[in-house]
Amino acid sequence: MSAYDELMAFQRETEALGQIAGRLGWDQETMMPRGAAEQRGDEMAAMEGVLHARRTDPRIGEWLEKAVAADEVAAAHLRHIRRSYARSVKVPAALAQEIARVTSVAQGIWAEARAKEDVPGFLPILAEVVRLRQREAECLAQGGDPYDALMDDYEPGANAAVIGAMFDRMRPRLVALREKVLGAARQPVAVQGSFGAEAQMRMARDLATAFGYDWNRGRLDLAVHPFSSGSADDVRITTRVVETEPFNCFYSTIHEVGHACYELGIDPDYRLTPLGNGVSMGVHESQSRIYENQLGRSRAFTGWMFSQMRERFGEFGIGSAEAFYASVNRVTPGYIRTEADEVQYNLHIMMRFDLERDLIKGKLAVRDLEEAWNARFLSDFGVAVDRPSHGLLQDVHWSCGLFGYFPTYSLGNVYAGCLHRALREDVPGLDEALAKGDAAPATGWLRERLQRHGGLRTPRETVAHACGFEPDEGPLLDYLEAKFGAIYGL
Amino acid sequence: MSAYDELMAFQRETEALGQIAGRLGWDQETMMPRGAAEQRGDEMAAMEGVLHARRTDPRIGEWLEKAVAADEVAAAHLRHIRRSYARSVKVPAALAQEIARVTSVAQGIWAEARAKEDVPGFLPILAEVVRLRQREAECLAQGGDPYDALMDDYEPGANAAVIGAMFDRMRPRLVALREKVLGAARQPVAVQGSFGAEAQMRMARDLATAFGYDWNRGRLDLAVHPFSSGSADDVRITTRVVETEPFNCFYSTIHEVGHACYELGIDPDYRLTPLGNGVSMGVHESQSRIYENQLGRSRAFTGWMFSQMRERFGEFGIGSAEAFYASVNRVTPGYIRTEADEVQYNLHIMMRFDLERDLIKGKLAVRDLEEAWNARFLSDFGVAVDRPSHGLLQDVHWSCGLFGYFPTYSLGNVYAGCLHRALREDVPGLDEALAKGDAAPATGWLRERLQRHGGLRTPRETVAHACGFEPDEGPLLDYLEAKFGAIYGL
Repeated sequence: MSAYDELMAFQRETEALGQIAGRLGWDQETMMPRGAAEQRGDEMAAMEGVLHARRTDPRIGEWLEKAVAADEVAAAHLRHIRRSYARSVKVPAALAQEIARVTSVAQGIWAEARAKEDVPGFLPILAEVVRLRQREAECLAQGGDPYDALMDDYEPGANAAVIGAMFDRMRPRLVALREKVLGAARQPVAVQGSFGAEAQMRMARDLATAFGYDWNRGRLDLAVHPFSSGSADDVRITTRVVETEPFNCFYSTIHEVGHACYELGIDPDYRLTPLGNGVSMGVHESQSRIYENQLGRSRAFTGWMFSQMRERFGEFGIGSAEAFYASVNRVTPGYIRTEADEVQYNLHIMMRFDLERDLIKGKLAVRDLEEAWNARFLSDFGVAVDRPSHGLLQDVHWSCGLFGYFPTYSLGNVYAGCLHRALREDVPGLDEALAKGDAAPATGWLRERLQRHGGLRTPRETVAHACGFEPDEGPLLDYLEAKFGAIYGL
Repeated sequence: MSAYDELMAFQRETEALGQIAGRLGWDQETMMPRGAAEQRGDEMAAMEGVLHARRTDPRIGEWLEKAVAADEVAAAHLRHIRRSYARSVKVPAALAQEIARVTSVAQGIWAEARAKEDVPGFLPILAEVVRLRQREAECLAQGGDPYDALMDDYEPGANAAVIGAMFDRMRPRLVALREKVLGAARQPVAVQGSFGAEAQMRMARDLATAFGYDWNRGRLDLAVHPFSSGSADDVRITTRVVETEPFNCFYSTIHEVGHACYELGIDPDYRLTPLGNGVSMGVHESQSRIYENQLGRSRAFTGWMFSQMRERFGEFGIGSAEAFYASVNRVTPGYIRTEADEVQYNLHIMMRFDLERDLIKGKLAVRDLEEAWNARFLSDFGVAVDRPSHGLLQDVHWSCGLFGYFPTYSLGNVYAGCLHRALREDVPGLDEALAKGDAAPATGWLRERLQRHGGLRTPRETVAHACGFEPDEGPLLDYLEAKFGAIYGL
């Protein structure tokens, strides 16, 4: 066996073990008995110990020295492995294991604190998570910016300066649009009534099918926080149900289907290799967001959804497909990021980006976080946070130690804007299909142009390759102004 | 750190990883999407590679040389680790991984073949499993008996000669009892009607609660083959539902609760250590069988069940608690081991014991297995097998590579007979509690006398310690003759 072949055989096993760790995470959020939380922390720590030992195995260094890339695919494999190896050897095994153990336990504490609106019950473990990730960031940054070092995990090539500049360009146009929209004379109405949990789940399944989710390689369950998990032939999604808010369940589902279809759509030749996962969180989010928003909240698709909902749920206070489209895209003041409309969503991210950078850099103490959150929310959204589950307890991310992750959501929106522009130019007749509940022409284009390539190119190159142009925030902002201008008669 | 402490820290992580592997097995049977079967095989193989590398880590040998046991518990830990290490180093890593991969895939093929009554679809993978386990048995036996070497995994201290002699003593009394019972003038009647799946599951949950299952550390799901899985704080059970056969679901549930309560009842100090699991499959089965049969099928407990079923399901063709007790314990010709009555159950095991020994020793080829099964079934049970799912496709075990496992079921029955004799002597008033649906006096005695000790003693010592006498088949056979003599008026 050549050094390259030996390296790849070793790597395939590591990827398989990574899948197992991911499946444990899924289990923890969906199936695990509550009393198993402490033990699960020990299990996750043991698994992280195994993964860390493999990622830092000195043989990788030796194989990398000798390995020769025969083609573009092999070169991409080596690039990923080199990157992962260089990163992993910087972090001591004991620290990596401690992070796995503590974040596993912290998620359970967060869920309980959120249910009980109990900020003091959450802050001690959050402080521990922040402290551990700060230490990891120091190891990774080696004198450089610690927040950038963490962000690089989720979005190779991105950094706070680039993201900050992008946010500076986006904010004025988004704030101006929000002001016009909220002040418009024409205001869409909300759906009314109660929507049974089982009927919502049936509809969610049909929506997943409409967007091409492969049920033979996945499943849909309930969880506190919707997510997608796994790669290749086992990619599972979760959603949640609130009886008075059907769009919460439906659009969470379509969003996670976007993530899942990305993983499921990757070239089967890349299964259990470094190319066999979505290339970055930003590109991942571009798929979930284009499925959810540019396609799922389009005039054409919502027309089909309207007829489906009338059939299944009867009257719910909305009389026409046009009014339904406006309702689905209603812009209102709200606390929750995952339920935010397209106009305000990125403003939520900008706020988290600033807060979490300050946390990691030690400029903001965990004990002052609630005050900082609430002050910033009032200033950015003009509303006072009324309870912690509407404030800093709303997201699972920080309990998982995901600092540097939030900005990839906005990057995903920006990429989705670019992909949508290219998709519309390339695929005529898209709306005719969407109006029949058929997203296949769109999802087929995305699979062919972007999804199937997995980790072959860098994140930016992946999007640029699919679009045929260099991505920036322009297309997203143009799309938002046009769409919401029309809905609100601006 | 002392050598002992280092060894135990290492062992704790291995135990945690073993729990993960077990949970993957649970997931595969309950939650996994069908299309993930191939990938799961790769994942299981990677996990087995990790576990095998840890179990054969040369540092274990060094630690074992230096380690000093401070007390009885430490001595038991060292005994378990020494045994596991000696076993593991005999099997090449590649073989261990191949067995994990192939048996993972084989379970899916078995389930499909069973559903389609497709023996030819199953035999090729079974032949592969047999071949791999034969090779493993050769490595383990080192010139000794290969079947004994496999059995030793499930029941340390047992061997085919001991089991065979026990079966020779049991068979005449069981066959004689069966003959009298089947020829008796008084014959119990079966329940009639259809029992809704959801109502069965609700009743199953209540039965699990009655037997003390800790829902905070477990859960109940549906699977093709009922099983219990996991240790310490995460012990999950499965059952199955057939609408015309409620006892199938109810007694499968109580059986698995017995297994689960054993794991859940072990001293928390032994969590994630070699003592933190049931000590052997035979002792495990003694718990599931005494819960299911001596307690669950007792006159007292079935009286409570009868009133519960009348409340929940209305009329089902049985008019009194006495007739219900007889019905629950009805002896009839039947194909399926897991549904067999207490009189015939061990005859099923004797047949599998002989067939699987011949398979492993190469005296019986997989291609001849169906013929051999059917001929033996006709001879032992007087009935011709009418379809493969009633014949050699009925059990998952061989697809999992579990050769040498079946005899532990009979050993479990024998141990349950002994434990039941001791329990009745020690705990007066048992029936008064059981008649109210309260199994706590019995389960409390079992937890205190047996379950909490985990792997502290050898399997036989564990049972002898609990009973206060050396176990043999006498108490079981006496119990069966008395119970069925009374039911059938012999």
